[in-house]
Amino acid sequence: MTDHIRIDGERLWDSIMAMARIGATAKGGSHRLTLSDEDKDARDLFDRWRRDAGLSLTVDEMGDMFAFRAGTETGRAPVGMGSHLDTQPFGGRFDGVFGVLAGLEVIRTLNDHGVTTAAPLEVVNWTNEEGARFAPSMLASGVYGGVFDLDWAQSRRAVDTGATVLDELKRIGYHGEASLRDHEFSAFFECHIEQGPILDAEGIAVGVVNAAQGFRWYDIKLEGFASHTGSTPMVGRRNALLGLARVAQAVDDIAHEHAPLARGTVGSQVAVGPGSRNVIPGAVDFTVDLRHPDADTLAAMDAALRQVCAVTAADIGLQLSLEQISYTEPVAFDPGCVAAVKRACERLGVSHTYITSGAGHDACYVARRAPTAMLFAPCKDGVSHHESESAEPEDLEAVCNVLLHAVLDVAGRAS
Amino acid sequence: MTDHIRIDGERLWDSIMAMARIGATAKGGSHRLTLSDEDKDARDLFDRWRRDAGLSLTVDEMGDMFAFRAGTETGRAPVGMGSHLDTQPFGGRFDGVFGVLAGLEVIRTLNDHGVTTAAPLEVVNWTNEEGARFAPSMLASGVYGGVFDLDWAQSRRAVDTGATVLDELKRIGYHGEASLRDHEFSAFFECHIEQGPILDAEGIAVGVVNAAQGFRWYDIKLEGFASHTGSTPMVGRRNALLGLARVAQAVDDIAHEHAPLARGTVGSQVAVGPGSRNVIPGAVDFTVDLRHPDADTLAAMDAALRQVCAVTAADIGLQLSLEQISYTEPVAFDPGCVAAVKRACERLGVSHTYITSGAGHDACYVARRAPTAMLFAPCKDGVSHHESESAEPEDLEAVCNVLLHAVLDVAGRAS
Repeated sequence: MTDHIRIDGERLWDSIMAMARIGATAKGGSHRLTLSDEDKDARDLFDRWRRDAGLSLTVDEMGDMFAFRAGTETGRAPVGMGSHLDTQPFGGRFDGVFGVLAGLEVIRTLNDHGVTTAAPLEVVNWTNEEGARFAPSMLASGVYGGVFDLDWAQSRRAVDTGATVLDELKRIGYHGEASLRDHEFSAFFECHIEQGPILDAEGIAVGVVNAAQGFRWYDIKLEGFASHTGSTPMVGRRNALLGLARVAQAVDDIAHEHAPLARGTVGSQVAVGPGSRNVIPGAVDFTVDLRHPDADTLAAMDAALRQVCAVTAADIGLQLSLEQISYTEPVAFDPGCVAAVKRACERLGVSHTYITSGAGHDACYVARRAPTAMLFAPCKDGVSHHESESAEPEDLEAVCNVLLHAVLDVAGRAS
Repeated sequence: MTDHIRIDGERLWDSIMAMARIGATAKGGSHRLTLSDEDKDARDLFDRWRRDAGLSLTVDEMGDMFAFRAGTETGRAPVGMGSHLDTQPFGGRFDGVFGVLAGLEVIRTLNDHGVTTAAPLEVVNWTNEEGARFAPSMLASGVYGGVFDLDWAQSRRAVDTGATVLDELKRIGYHGEASLRDHEFSAFFECHIEQGPILDAEGIAVGVVNAAQGFRWYDIKLEGFASHTGSTPMVGRRNALLGLARVAQAVDDIAHEHAPLARGTVGSQVAVGPGSRNVIPGAVDFTVDLRHPDADTLAAMDAALRQVCAVTAADIGLQLSLEQISYTEPVAFDPGCVAAVKRACERLGVSHTYITSGAGHDACYVARRAPTAMLFAPCKDGVSHHESESAEPEDLEAVCNVLLHAVLDVAGRAS
């Protein structure tokens, strides 16, 4: 019987804190960009820990690390647990790291209790989830999921040095031989901090993630006419910023109209020209981000956005250019994996709620190939991608225990 | 009798074109920043022309150039005509230049016809009207008008080299001995292109400028909370860009409510942070520019702006910081000078309309010390502060003829 087994919350926390010291920032965060020297150090530390835990390591051609623990049924594909060890620039200590080290803690706990599962287990560190040094994000899991070509992914260039992913994999010694596409999981679980405020605000221990938002990203340009703020009459102005104002309000309205799951935002990447306080804005460049877990609703939001942009441009006399630069399909996580997480919550008596992931995660791409689910832990005020990102040891412990029991459930007992 | 006298439109145009060759840009404009080598060349050319016209030169401690022609009444202060020879970076050929060279053309015409006026006449080139290399604009005329201290003005620093106004005056050889504050005019006229679209659109030859807008400039900051566009629910967001959107629309509405003279603009100098497409805007910095020729109406617009900012901030949960960084009082030009311009238009049979200056001009500060008026000429599509700034020879000729006859009217005939 394994019902009584619990992970070691202190060991989990200490490991997260040890990892956070690699690339530690003055304000308590971590700065560990993909395939940087700090990323290499993080990988080396994980490699040491997996060896201590008796796991064998495979590194694939994208640098993904698979730390393998045999099960009793040799023919079965492993149950994967993992996330990523890279961070945003001056990012937090928990984003990604928690998911990898929660998987490691599950292994350590099973080792402590001498438990072998039927299916093998595997702890995974995916390369370049963040996308900050090499665009786009979730690069390696995207190759796994069939979204990106391997060659294309390997030739992405670093925003700092211009080196390719392949160059940097070789430089830090993590360019492996294994084929990423040939890897198989019988199931995959990713623990992550929520990166949103819901669990923290409502005091709920575990988010059982049953879906992830689809999202559409747009680049929009409105061009009017730059002229003098004093000598140009109000009538006849072609003020591009006024166009942005109306679109920004409309995007907010569109999301509220599809509450509570929809999100709509003009992002914080805005350029207004020509850049003088006494010149009417002649041009604005901005981005829009629309999200919904239902593809049809997201398509309706897209149509509403296009209409409001066209109407606004015509109204003010602006020239509109609107380009959808990416579309990420909504993800419905595997009902079996989701149910396993929910059962584990119930068995352990921890509070939980279904939740939709608003952000993209490696699990979203893995889900294209394997039965997958995610578990969210509360993080303070929902803050993430920031040095002040914060989570409580007992919250992470609770989620890791749920992971343990969901994995035991899915991997099965040794027969 | 002087009623039959007309200026030489071709000579005026040729002089403007000759001046435009100093600092000429590839796209047909002029780049002659204040107290640069190009400004020195422009001053030297004007100096040669004034000598050829028999005028004596005084240079004052701010580098202003006063080219003097004696009248028959030695005790009277001169009637001034002028503007500025500096330009915006990659600016136009007419802004300022037309006003100085129209004054010179009036002198040349009187020379041709052997006419001496009762009051002396003076052609003026004011230093640093543009404010692009040394802030603020209208620096020397502001000292004249008592708005700026002389020491403060002389110690303004260049945005390029950091040199002071005084340094640069000495370097180019235009730091004079004469006291600016002691200078007197019995009247002052400034010809200028409109820098707005009204005359061009309506086909009117002369703008009789009877007032200049007062204006209030603001620096505004709205701070909310930057968080993830996907994982942050719509309810509870503190989106700073949404605040800007509402304020920008309201500023436009406020100006329309006080049509047709009011102007209200969020300028094209906008910063949105932190600068990522998938982060909700946490902070925006922007500027507001409100203008009206009536001080009470402008105060009402100010109150409306402050209210809408406060309500918007409270509504969205933003922190507001609003600072009025400058207030320029409305100017009512001298009724006598304005009437002289209008009479000259009528006598010459040219179409004309009263117009309010939306921009600041040297004449606005001169008006604090001397009876003053302005004359506007049409410019193509109202475009100014741009290399494509354009005016027609016959339009400038018409306005210069009106200047001639207004000056003859005010300066009086030799007795």
